Order: sequence, then structure tokens, then C-alpha cells
Amino acid sequence: MSQTEKKAVILLSGGLDSATLLALAHRDGYTCYAMSFDYGQRHRCELDAAAKVAKLNSVKAHKTIRLNLDSIGGSALTDTNIDVPVELSEGIPVTYVPARNTVFLSIALGWAEVVDAQRIYIGVNAVDYSGYPDCRPEYISAFQQMANLATKGGVEGKPITIEAPLQQLSKAEIVLLGTGLEVDYSVTVSCYNPAPGGEACRVCDACRLREQGFTNAGIADPTRYQ
Amino acid sequence: MSQTEKKAVILLSGGLDSATLLALAHRDGYTCYAMSFDYGQRHRCELDAAAKVAKLNSVKAHKTIRLNLDSIGGSALTDTNIDVPVELSEGIPVTYVPARNTVFLSIALGWAEVVDAQRIYIGVNAVDYSGYPDCRPEYISAFQQMANLATKGGVEGKPITIEAPLQQLSKAEIVLLGTGLEVDYSVTVSCYNPAPGGEACRVCDACRLREQGFTNAGIADPTRYQ
Repeated sequence: MSQTEKKAVILLSGGLDSATLLALAHRDGYTCYAMSFDYGQRHRCELDAAAKVAKLNSVKAHKTIRLNLDSIGGSALTDTNIDVPVELSEGIPVTYVPARNTVFLSIALGWAEVVDAQRIYIGVNAVDYSGYPDCRPEYISAFQQMANLATKGGVEGKPITIEAPLQQLSKAEIVLLGTGLEVDYSVTVSCYNPAPGGEACRVCDACRLREQGFTNAGIADPTRYQ
Repeated sequence: MSQTEKKAVILLSGGLDSATLLALAHRDGYTCYAMSFDYGQRHRCELDAAAKVAKLNSVKAHKTIRLNLDSIGGSALTDTNIDVPVELSEGIPVTYVPARNTVFLSIALGWAEVVDAQRIYIGVNAVDYSGYPDCRPEYISAFQQMANLATKGGVEGKPITIEAPLQQLSKAEIVLLGTGLEVDYSVTVSCYNPAPGGEACRVCDACRLREQGFTNAGIADPTRYQ
């Protein structure tokens, strides 16, 4: 019986969700190609966190793509003239980066084709999330359809699968899952507006969702706060 | 009657097709936001051509996104270790850049959201083309479906339309259309492997398709050859 090496591209932001994602992909037996983005985000220190997470998990490769999305702006995360809100808001918040997940998945799709990966893992979540349109299951499903038509592999009957295993989990469930997989959450950074050393602000959407997740899971929160 | 300004993002490579595309968007009454990509392509001089085309057409803005796709490789256009073929080939050729149109359309989608554009124009063509999967009508249609679910506008009932008006035209028809719209093809560069000054090689896929187009249209070819 011939065995093909199982390979996956993992979108690794350096936050809680993507660290859990990487542990899951390893558990599933995939050789992991981690991909991060230096896209002009104000919370650039998440890239240091991503590098640490990648190293701790012995990934096959870790690639950081540089992309000046800040020249487009339109989000509190890429335009320093727009403040990061300190309260949860109704509707789609200003931290939404236009088309970000589509851009990230597209570039991951290119890398997956080149390294001949069967899967792309993305840590979107549609339970404890900020209301971004590109985190919803129907969006992921539409991306999959498009990807099947976009790629050489898709045309040749070897489509690349988009895996979003955290989609239906609460933040507490993600924390419990990752803890069971021995994820070291102390090196991850979730905050949208951290201090230069990575210390979290505790008041942005991402901090609130993370803190609540640890509390609900009954697990000590290793986040370093300002 | 209130009138909303018609705005469009145009994917402008600096080649024959995209110059025609920009002229079409202008004819359709759109204020044009041109977008080019510095993605590690070996035919980087197309960016100078794009800048000239944008200037000649008085676009509202011209943005060049830097993106190191060459770090992914996998194509003769982004990996100098893979030669550009000098003959047309069967199947998907090595000049195919994995997921390139998906990446370009995704970033254009982000900009379209920020500037509140109703349309994105892309110069894909499924008649005289190189067999890339992401040039086919079914691909564009799937991208549209995905974009409707990915964006704030899509969620709020103002989806952004992907326009591919060259899709069903032969290269000769594109040349005739553009000539009627007074496109100056002398500043455009189509070649995949040009000399540093932009002089075309005459033997790559892109050169062959272009030359044949002018011949079939019965129009003098202003391309500068090596």
C-alpha cells in the first residue's frame, strides 16, 4: 500500500485559536506548513508569538508573507487613525479588515498547491466571535467551491480542503481542547492593541472574548496584561 | 433623483488586456481605482507599463500592492530557476502562478469595500488564453458567490460585482475593441520574459497570443521587440 505524506497549510496568527488549530493538525497526522501575515497590523507583535508557536510545534516550515494591506486601510487594525474600540459593539465592528480571510486563504491556497498539501486549516469561529462576515460557515463553504475551480489540483481531481475545525466551538471549548493537546497559551497573543512587549489591553473585543473563554473553561489564564 | 458616484477597482497589470479593461470601465462611466501587484514577478517592468497606462487614463488612484509571492514559488513567473517556455504547451503551463487571480481579486475586494466601489474589473479571457484554471467563467462565477458572503457590503445587501468583460472575446476582438476606445497599446507590456527596458521576447505564450491578436485584427502591432 502506498502512503502519501499528509501535508497541511495552517494559518497561524499567533493567537489562541490558531495555536489550537496547529495542535489539532498535528494530532490529525499532518506535516504542518505554518503561514503568517505581516500585513500592516497594529498588533504586529502577534508575529513574534506566531514564530514561538511554530517553533514549539516543530512545523516543517513557517512562512511570513509581507503584504501592505495598511495602504488600503479601512480598519482599526490597519489604520492607526481609527481607534480600537474598548467595548463590544453591534453589527460588524471597525476592527473588521476588508476581505482579510479571503486574502489569507487565497495566499494559503497558492502555497498549498506548491507544497502539494491536501488541507488548509483556518481558525475561524462563529460562536464567540466579533461578527465578521468572513468567519461564517456559509462563507467557508463558498470559498471551498471557488477554490475547487481556481486551482490546478481542483481541475485535476485533487482539490484542497478548507478545514475550520473550531467553527462551532465556544471559546471555552477551544481552551479546553487546546489544553488537552498541551498547547502553551502563555506564548500566544490575542489582543488587538497590545503594548510593544505583547502585554494585552484587556478591553478590546479579542481580549474580552479570550478572558471569558478561560473563565468559562475554569482554566487559569496565562495572558500577560498591561 | 440622487446619484451615487459609480466607482470601480480595475486590476491593471500593464498588459494589453488590462489596458483595454480600464478603457472599458471609463466608457461605462466609472471612476477608476487601478490596482497593480509587485509580487516578485520576473516581468516586473510591467509595473512601469501599468503606471503609464494609469496616468494616460487619469485614474482616480493607482495603488501597487507589494506581496512576496516569489517566496512561495511554483511558477516560471516567480521562480527564476524555472525557465519561461518558448512554445505553447498542452495542459496547464509552468507560467501558471498558483492561485494568483484569487489573490489579486481578494485584495481588490478589500480595496473595493474601503472605497465603496460597486465593481471590480478583471481582464481574464477564456478564448485566446494559456489554460489557467482561474481564467474560466465558472471560476469567476464561484468567486462572485464567495465575495457576496465575504464582505460587509454583501451582508448589507450591496454586493460588489466582478466584471470580466473580455472573457468571451478573442485577442483580435480585444485589440479591435481597445483601438476603438483609443487605447495606446505602445505603452503596454505583455511579455513574460522581457528585456529590462520592456522589449518583448516574441516567443513566450503571452507574446505569441498578442502578436497573433494584432495580426488577426489587421492592426499594426506597436510592441517593442528585443
